[in-house]
Amino acid sequence: MASKHLGNQTVALQSPPYIAATACVVGKKEGAGPLKAWFDFISDDSYFGEASWEKAESVMLKQCFGIACDKGKIAPSDLQYIFAGDLLNQCVSSSFAMRDSGVAYFGLFGACSTMGEALSLGAMCIDGGFADAVCAMTSSHFCAAERQFRLPLEYGGQRSPTAQWTVTGAGAVILKNGGGSGAHITHITTGKIIDAGITDAGNMGAAMAPAAFETLKAHFEDTERSPEYYDAIITGDLGRFGHNVLMELFDREGLGFPKTFTDCGVLIYDRPRQDAHSGGSGCGCGAAVLSGYILHNMLEGKWNRVLFCATGALMSATSAMQGQSIPGVCHAVALENIQEV
Amino acid sequence: MASKHLGNQTVALQSPPYIAATACVVGKKEGAGPLKAWFDFISDDSYFGEASWEKAESVMLKQCFGIACDKGKIAPSDLQYIFAGDLLNQCVSSSFAMRDSGVAYFGLFGACSTMGEALSLGAMCIDGGFADAVCAMTSSHFCAAERQFRLPLEYGGQRSPTAQWTVTGAGAVILKNGGGSGAHITHITTGKIIDAGITDAGNMGAAMAPAAFETLKAHFEDTERSPEYYDAIITGDLGRFGHNVLMELFDREGLGFPKTFTDCGVLIYDRPRQDAHSGGSGCGCGAAVLSGYILHNMLEGKWNRVLFCATGALMSATSAMQGQSIPGVCHAVALENIQEV
Repeated sequence: MASKHLGNQTVALQSPPYIAATACVVGKKEGAGPLKAWFDFISDDSYFGEASWEKAESVMLKQCFGIACDKGKIAPSDLQYIFAGDLLNQCVSSSFAMRDSGVAYFGLFGACSTMGEALSLGAMCIDGGFADAVCAMTSSHFCAAERQFRLPLEYGGQRSPTAQWTVTGAGAVILKNGGGSGAHITHITTGKIIDAGITDAGNMGAAMAPAAFETLKAHFEDTERSPEYYDAIITGDLGRFGHNVLMELFDREGLGFPKTFTDCGVLIYDRPRQDAHSGGSGCGCGAAVLSGYILHNMLEGKWNRVLFCATGALMSATSAMQGQSIPGVCHAVALENIQEV
Repeated sequence: MASKHLGNQTVALQSPPYIAATACVVGKKEGAGPLKAWFDFISDDSYFGEASWEKAESVMLKQCFGIACDKGKIAPSDLQYIFAGDLLNQCVSSSFAMRDSGVAYFGLFGACSTMGEALSLGAMCIDGGFADAVCAMTSSHFCAAERQFRLPLEYGGQRSPTAQWTVTGAGAVILKNGGGSGAHITHITTGKIIDAGITDAGNMGAAMAPAAFETLKAHFEDTERSPEYYDAIITGDLGRFGHNVLMELFDREGLGFPKTFTDCGVLIYDRPRQDAHSGGSGCGCGAAVLSGYILHNMLEGKWNRVLFCATGALMSATSAMQGQSIPGVCHAVALENIQEV
């Protein structure tokens, strides 16, 4: 077994990379929610000045990348790699956003778990000696996702109570090597694909919760840490229903479920007031909440140890139509405040 | 700059991982082509016993993974990570193929460059000390790709001379740490996204050739190697037209273009006899030719140094319909025979 491997699914980084800069850009609805103070830019225009929602998503992600570079005083040419992906078919939001960046590009598909996957691979890349600075980023757009995965918006269909609202948002995190202070990525637990047999594309939280459970269980076993080690344990986009399923899974196994567990999809909207049903979802949900609210709380020292567990549902409209169940995956990264030495 | 970085886009591995096993599974047309002797399994049934082409692709990839594990005498539980992706929307071929594997899973989207990307990240993961054994794999299926990207097969449309034939095929490569003999991954040159403004989805070779050119140029500059260093330099799926564009780009820059340059899309079909127009394409094209023909030639010592340059077009049917041009990317890995010490 390789030296950095702890147990089955976790690696401990020898030289934990630190978070040098973050940015998040969201739409109007997200900007009217409880986390509005922590977003870098809130667009009133869901088209972001473009002629289609797909182009809008791409422009939003590009803008987010620009803000991250700006905040970190890092030129794109200082980055060795970009790790990016999104929900659109063939991940066109990310590749079109980065086509002029001039940076070596690794395209990812982890569905809504993309931010966890990008941070994992980016951090491993730095710790492995292959890069000094990388950017991890992702996006989602409500209108582009709805028409691709579910129904045309114009149809005006009723949404089930378990349905989630795809976040219009993008997040970007620049990771750097070396002795910066603040939040560092110390451990990575990479998810296996878990298929619990859920077939309802209107209940993605339930499809992803078993994957979150398995990754969290593996993380605690591999690191010999208890959930209490962390000031906050935050899943990506389970929403209220999925979060409840996760709590039930922990209960069934007789494991404690501390109050520090929460979910970006629960946090991002004032659900009843904003008619967001079960809560937020999408790659941009975890990415924007991490890049804003979570890392702000770490910067302020309110939280010093956070386990960020990005969750994803690995299905397509075609697989759903062909009667396939919805496999889930969850990639966890441990973020810990370390003082500069 | 990190210690393993050479120049701008290339890393040199300190402990090059070796190729412990490979497998390739293809369809009937590929099995009737000039490379038939090197495929592990040729299916007469393009449905692979399934009810849809998407499910067929997934089953083909799963079968390919099983053969690779079998040939390498490696249980899936001995692998720390799987790196996989494909062309289907939301990469469902890969995630459904691997949903029962029980292995930590990194989903990738590199379009037809996926095998290059998976080998790059897998090798970096091993060299970085995060894993002892990983599997890199990908697939494509002619029928699933045609209806997703172009026209329903039933339409029976004429194909332009520049059109390529998406390979029905899968390839899997198991990489391991340590002193095995044979082909090792020694250098990795990761591609930037290059958009030359091509908008014809029936001429993907021309869209990808500029990306191949930029990655090759970066590789030679970064490593201070000349093309003559390699016994073979093989792009993934430029096809005949794309290959000619690449030769022209080298000519224009006054760089030599040795006879050792070829392309998996040119090699896989007997083009006039098999009505394959410009040649093969798809994730499975480079992956199956690498896993069979190329690595067989290395095993036999016919070639000792090969530069495998997987090419991809990062477009979707939606981006094409919205008038977007086709960005390309190319990820190169240097494979070198090293004797066990």
